[in-house]
Amino acid sequence: TTVDKGVDFANYFCTYSFLYHQKEMLSDRVRMDAYFNSIFRNKHHFRGKTVLDVGTGSGILAIWSAQAGARKVYAVEATKMSEHARTLVKANNLQHVVEVIEGSIEDIVLPEKVDVIISEWMGYFLLRESMFDSVICARDRWLKPTGVMYPSHARMWMAPIRSGLGDQKINDYEGAMDDWYSFVKETKSYYGVDMSVLTRPFSDEQKKYYLQTSLWSNLHPHQERAQGLCGFGGWFDVHFRGSREDPAQQEIELTTAPSTDNGTHWGQQVFLLHPPTRVSGGDDLNVTFSMTRSKENHRLMEVELSCEIRQPSGQILPPCISKFYIE
Amino acid sequence: TTVDKGVDFANYFCTYSFLYHQKEMLSDRVRMDAYFNSIFRNKHHFRGKTVLDVGTGSGILAIWSAQAGARKVYAVEATKMSEHARTLVKANNLQHVVEVIEGSIEDIVLPEKVDVIISEWMGYFLLRESMFDSVICARDRWLKPTGVMYPSHARMWMAPIRSGLGDQKINDYEGAMDDWYSFVKETKSYYGVDMSVLTRPFSDEQKKYYLQTSLWSNLHPHQERAQGLCGFGGWFDVHFRGSREDPAQQEIELTTAPSTDNGTHWGQQVFLLHPPTRVSGGDDLNVTFSMTRSKENHRLMEVELSCEIRQPSGQILPPCISKFYIE
Ligand SMILES: Nc1ncnc2c1ncn2[C@@H]1O[C@H](CSCC[C@H](N)C(=O)O)[C@@H](O)[C@H]1O
Ligand SMILES: Nc1ncnc2c1ncn2[C@@H]1O[C@H](CSCC[C@H](N)C(=O)O)[C@@H](O)[C@H]1O
Repeated sequence: TTVDKGVDFANYFCTYSFLYHQKEMLSDRVRMDAYFNSIFRNKHHFRGKTVLDVGTGSGILAIWSAQAGARKVYAVEATKMSEHARTLVKANNLQHVVEVIEGSIEDIVLPEKVDVIISEWMGYFLLRESMFDSVICARDRWLKPTGVMYPSHARMWMAPIRSGLGDQKINDYEGAMDDWYSFVKETKSYYGVDMSVLTRPFSDEQKKYYLQTSLWSNLHPHQERAQGLCGFGGWFDVHFRGSREDPAQQEIELTTAPSTDNGTHWGQQVFLLHPPTRVSGGDDLNVTFSMTRSKENHRLMEVELSCEIRQPSGQILPPCISKFYIE
Repeated sequence: TTVDKGVDFANYFCTYSFLYHQKEMLSDRVRMDAYFNSIFRNKHHFRGKTVLDVGTGSGILAIWSAQAGARKVYAVEATKMSEHARTLVKANNLQHVVEVIEGSIEDIVLPEKVDVIISEWMGYFLLRESMFDSVICARDRWLKPTGVMYPSHARMWMAPIRSGLGDQKINDYEGAMDDWYSFVKETKSYYGVDMSVLTRPFSDEQKKYYLQTSLWSNLHPHQERAQGLCGFGGWFDVHFRGSREDPAQQEIELTTAPSTDNGTHWGQQVFLLHPPTRVSGGDDLNVTFSMTRSKENHRLMEVELSCEIRQPSGQILPPCISKFYIE
């Protein structure tokens, strides 16, 4: 499938061209601390080196790289945010080190290969937004064989959870359907048109919206233990390890796991089972999970989740299979 | 300027492909009654005639036209909603009269010219969405010289208003700026980067959002009288008059004016003056108003409003000129 660049810009990039949105990321302490520490506690990776910042946004990672001693930083940004990045670089007196380039990383050309690629490319549940593709493209084109990636490793996690959201979403869905039924009745009696044939597609639409779309959530660590299994929570972490040949001096982790004090703007993505499933201590959960790109929008994801329960007696309950959209 | 169809689809048409959104329009009683009455109280315009419904959505206007006795109705819809329209037509047993055509009105070809063009094309403050262009295009291509337009006439209104929204929006804006200042301070102290150079562009962005964007509002008729002039409210009405040679038997009006009982989903668009202006009984307001398409998105509008106050003494206060976005 080919991607219409104009459509992609309208759908995806446009939010990033607002300072308001950049500021939200810049105010995420967990995120900021992880990148800050990964750079300043591993200055040997930056001192005198060339760096590429993929999707520089406000320019923050490029600026830190320069402050840590980089010889040259290429800061590439697809949106007009590049202009603000340039302003910021200049105001921080780094215009001789940091070169801001407006363009998408897939299109631009650099005068040299680089020692470090740094990027904050992670979307909800790691892969939403598909910016990972762009980072891999940058790596294959512009990283020296001896170069290092910042971050270098990523993991995805899923845990069974309990949650009150399930009942709420079922209520919302049922409310929407009640409303639809009175609408159908009134349209028939006031305006002589029978809409009941659209009940099924309307219900599908609402089900998708209320019941099959992953929910942004700030899970409490306690929710990770499940008696009644309400669904699954998904999150990710990334690590800054350098490479095997050229490891980090101090390895930093950025985790988006459920936490009481260290939440991030990514939160966790919740996939609810409708209805919830009964599980007891000793049951084995056998979960298969697959995530694919949505056909309509390559930056959104579709998830298929199947969950089989094996009881201590050896009995296996029929698997429940659910489909979700990460939108 | 040329329009990228894919982008236009992503930005504009996509909302119309949800039944949820069509239902909102179908639940707007004022809108529904006006179209219903305009058709069924003017059956002579429909009986035995050919009709084109521009942007049929769920198909409702096409179905009514057929129920009023049309010989043939072409129901054109750009989005996949056309499939639901086709289902609805069939469920109401009108498939021999109503032909649903998926495509944009600019592209499709009809086998004949029509006697009536019916369409519900009005956006916020009449012109937002620019669907009017499509209706005019349809008229020029497909209406017989003897044909009639439903609706046939439209008017835009503006009135000075008072409103508490002004203070609230100023508060929101100031809150966002306070927040920005602490963000700048913390980013400097925690992360060693000075962001203050972005204060001006951030403030411009927030001003545009909070102070220069027209507000959807359900004005109370009393707000139309202004002592302290807080801004202007804008709305529209349309009329179904047929043509001079072939007038309606009963002329119907659809108005979106401020009303206690008969509000519509269009509401009114409010353009606030910051700060509010002092006016007194006897003052003359001389208002110039211009509305142009936004360069970035031809379906959105930009408004320039200048307001000059002439006091009874003859003294003229310096005009206040404001720019607004209808987004
Ligand atoms: N293919 C691509 N080419 C260039 N920039 C891209 C890109 N895909 C995404 N981006 C940009 O990457 C940024 C990701 S958000 C991270 C911004 C910044 N590095 C920070 O850490 O605060 C956005 O500004 C987005 O516009
Ligand atoms: N150029 C164009 N060609 C075809 N359909 C269009 C169009 N511009 C807008 N539309 C469609 O016009 C509809 C306007 S909303 C009105 C829907 C319906 N006639 C009703 O009265 O309830 C939307 O469904 C939109 O997708």
